[in-house]
Amino acid sequence: MNEAGFIAALRALPLHTGARGLADDCAVIEFGGETLILTHDAMAEGTHYLAGADMADVAWKLVASNLSDLAAKGAEPVGVLVGHMLGAGDDRFVEGLAEVLGHYGVPLLGGDTIAAAGPRVLGLTAIGRATHSPVPARSGARNGDTLWITGELGAAMLGFEALTGGPPGDSTAFRRPLARLAEGQALAPLVTAMMDISDGLLLDAFRMAEASQVSIAIGSAAVPVASPTRRMDCMTWGDDYELLFTLPPGAGPPVAATQIGSVETRGFVPLFVDGEPVANADGLGYRHGE
Amino acid sequence: MNEAGFIAALRALPLHTGARGLADDCAVIEFGGETLILTHDAMAEGTHYLAGADMADVAWKLVASNLSDLAAKGAEPVGVLVGHMLGAGDDRFVEGLAEVLGHYGVPLLGGDTIAAAGPRVLGLTAIGRATHSPVPARSGARNGDTLWITGELGAAMLGFEALTGGPPGDSTAFRRPLARLAEGQALAPLVTAMMDISDGLLLDAFRMAEASQVSIAIGSAAVPVASPTRRMDCMTWGDDYELLFTLPPGAGPPVAATQIGSVETRGFVPLFVDGEPVANADGLGYRHGE
Repeated sequence: MNEAGFIAALRALPLHTGARGLADDCAVIEFGGETLILTHDAMAEGTHYLAGADMADVAWKLVASNLSDLAAKGAEPVGVLVGHMLGAGDDRFVEGLAEVLGHYGVPLLGGDTIAAAGPRVLGLTAIGRATHSPVPARSGARNGDTLWITGELGAAMLGFEALTGGPPGDSTAFRRPLARLAEGQALAPLVTAMMDISDGLLLDAFRMAEASQVSIAIGSAAVPVASPTRRMDCMTWGDDYELLFTLPPGAGPPVAATQIGSVETRGFVPLFVDGEPVANADGLGYRHGE
Repeated sequence: MNEAGFIAALRALPLHTGARGLADDCAVIEFGGETLILTHDAMAEGTHYLAGADMADVAWKLVASNLSDLAAKGAEPVGVLVGHMLGAGDDRFVEGLAEVLGHYGVPLLGGDTIAAAGPRVLGLTAIGRATHSPVPARSGARNGDTLWITGELGAAMLGFEALTGGPPGDSTAFRRPLARLAEGQALAPLVTAMMDISDGLLLDAFRMAEASQVSIAIGSAAVPVASPTRRMDCMTWGDDYELLFTLPPGAGPPVAATQIGSVETRGFVPLFVDGEPVANADGLGYRHGE
């Protein structure tokens, strides 16, 4: 059973009506008089992070990547639960956890600690509170909307390459990504659709188009990239954790962002890049071993 | 850094004031006018479950053990998030997940699926809603209280032994433990302290005594056990997921339960078993590889 098959089988289970969190999205549920946003990610040593990495960076990324999921919902974080497998560098893991939780002002709520053999697997559950209803989803893009991203893409790729024998450079963007929490909250009341770009712009835009049943047209020259000579790499590599969102016709964003395309009625493919149709998501984004 | 050191380091981080969930307890936080209960457990192949086990049983236990944590808080489950590493038997995992979620009427909210090498590590986050405030804690036992447990102890041990070359027998209690959700909700308004017995009665009673700063005296002859000739084994093995709770003097439980001891002012040790002092938790419970 491959991943797609497994997720399809899970989707056949009794699901909460608000459940959208099976693959890489958050769960959204009403609780008390508010809306609770939940997300869980797991990271395996050697697959999702480099064996031998500074565990402080691993802790940072584990938290920041989950907070990025909350950011895409316009949520404010309530706290995190850590599922930790003990191992080398645990002192650095705690230091990195303190740094990232302190940076975002997010408390540690609890978790579990296990001792086991083999490559380490670390999990994190982030809990947030929606700041706007309806909660933004990737399924809301409509014909005529404009398509935007925060920040620039490719810095994580360059950082990864600097760490793994490529040209020297600053690896901070790869090791310590930032979650666009303030931007997500400012955008939530305005966007028609929003998600974070964790797996590369093109793959995630493809997913947004599929979820919204529209076609998305991206003009690659408009996309801010960290390496203009490698524009396509920057648009497919992922790990940048910027926000991808759509706005109704004529609206502008309240945060720094760049318009990179537009939303059209569903054509014969979900995605067009510089007018070229992209029919299939296979190989579109860098899936980091998954 | 060992587990105790790691948890101590985590406790020095910025913690939510309601956070009690760092080791094996739940997090309790106010949200939307209600009280949210959160717990996360991880299970590693070969450590927390037998390599080669039916993955349907693994899914059952992963969910039931977390729901048991909610039961000890008198919470009703809201849903679960699954952190899944793909591998052999995933079809059975999905079947077991469907069975346990159906049994308890609990929806799947979301989660994450990863592919990675090495022994599998599976995580589960369970979310619940408190049905009574204050939420029962292990820290509430007071001098003069009576000590009780639901059900009997040792059935999981006998089931484990039946599966691993011991005397033939019914392994259901080990493979498919039950969470005492209804009992926990009925007890929540009445108890002074409550927790589930996941690591063995004596270790968990020791922890309750430490958290409550009392001494707990257990009369072993009163403890319902599945194997009377191995009473001490039944009281230390764990995995039974019964509830351990204290009631104020003169009160009786509204559910089937057995009085097994009493609470005293803190003496020179936290725990007495048949009058014998137990000064140290080391080796008291079966820690299943942790």
